[in-house]
Amino acid sequence: MNKLKICLTPALLPLFRLSGCVVVVVDVLRATSSFVVGLDEGRLTKILPLMDLETCLSKRQLGYLVAAERDGAVVEGFDFGNSPFSYQQAHLAGRDLAVTTTNGTKTIHLSASADEIVVGCLLNLSAVVAYLAGRGKDVVVACAGWKDHFNLEDTLCAGALVWHLQQSGGFEFANDECLVASMVYGQAIREGLFNFVKKSAHFARLAAFGIEADIRFCMQENYSAVVPVYRDGFLVKA
Amino acid sequence: MNKLKICLTPALLPLFRLSGCVVVVVDVLRATSSFVVGLDEGRLTKILPLMDLETCLSKRQLGYLVAAERDGAVVEGFDFGNSPFSYQQAHLAGRDLAVTTTNGTKTIHLSASADEIVVGCLLNLSAVVAYLAGRGKDVVVACAGWKDHFNLEDTLCAGALVWHLQQSGGFEFANDECLVASMVYGQAIREGLFNFVKKSAHFARLAAFGIEADIRFCMQENYSAVVPVYRDGFLVKA
Repeated sequence: MNKLKICLTPALLPLFRLSGCVVVVVDVLRATSSFVVGLDEGRLTKILPLMDLETCLSKRQLGYLVAAERDGAVVEGFDFGNSPFSYQQAHLAGRDLAVTTTNGTKTIHLSASADEIVVGCLLNLSAVVAYLAGRGKDVVVACAGWKDHFNLEDTLCAGALVWHLQQSGGFEFANDECLVASMVYGQAIREGLFNFVKKSAHFARLAAFGIEADIRFCMQENYSAVVPVYRDGFLVKA
Repeated sequence: MNKLKICLTPALLPLFRLSGCVVVVVDVLRATSSFVVGLDEGRLTKILPLMDLETCLSKRQLGYLVAAERDGAVVEGFDFGNSPFSYQQAHLAGRDLAVTTTNGTKTIHLSASADEIVVGCLLNLSAVVAYLAGRGKDVVVACAGWKDHFNLEDTLCAGALVWHLQQSGGFEFANDECLVASMVYGQAIREGLFNFVKKSAHFARLAAFGIEADIRFCMQENYSAVVPVYRDGFLVKA
């Protein structure tokens, strides 16, 4: 049996041994959801996740589209932020994107010691589960959280991932976080994912930006079959 | 309304502003449960929580009883560890205790910037809730966890505290942890606290020491009316 663990915030990632594991980075609202959309349907060729704004903006002169989000808002001077609808635009086709976000890109970089890093969200839930089942390795689901804090929506998604992986038969829960997160997922399914996530602190934070439609979109399961994997510094389709 | 927050592990405490708040330190299995028992029924006069073994042991020559636990076991040379049954002995009456444990004492020291620190567990649940309701301040419940990791039993107890405080009317949930932990508590009540906590990683860890009876004891609600508060370096009855 392969082992499943969840890391609830990037601040706790140093406690986890990632070597030998596949890490699934989860930033449901909205970075990893948007990356999946961006790589879907023949749009972006690859995505370059970066830590700081300056480096990200400098990629424009190399032909990249550039995207940046801080504290939930688009940063001035960039092409867009991390709304999934920005990643659905036709003009993305065949382009490369350099991007930096508050929590998601940081979590990808902190997972560098993993055997492999993939990007998960609710939109590509079944696709990620099938991909991981095929790898036959231990899995750590790394929640991006909010500025190193725990959050509800990433925990919910992590719960969805570990619950479906456990059901698939080849995996077992290896920390208490799996038990709690899968309980959160079960409750969210009963209440409806969107209704459930409305209770989160981040919902209130994002609602102030008038992006309820973004949240509703990101709460859909299995919208896409794209599994972004991190290779040589880029996210590309598996 | 006063605000309720839960901090899931001591590694995340630096993210919380504790000034202006009462912190409730929770280490259900077994430090905070044992401290409550030790201060009950006219036994220990005060408890001195310390970070390191050497300092703790040196207090014996000052007349203290000395207790130490590391990785779930009693440390050689000390009078006892952190089994609640050790804290029920008659010979504790009128004595002072110096103690160091893997997670609990560390969490107390990391909470130093709080207005006040109290010690909570399931054994003194109602007493702590009544005490906090009387303070009229924001509350942060600090879970001791296991070596900076999240754990099920402290989350369960934190959920019990915030749920009862919210019900009391003067408090509101101020982070997503409250929502999730109170959900965990609700599920544990439905399954029975002891049955529920059997699923935790720590149960397996402690069961190896043959201390299932300790766990069963610590899972009782409202066994004691003692609220230990941290004053001038000591835990004393409020």
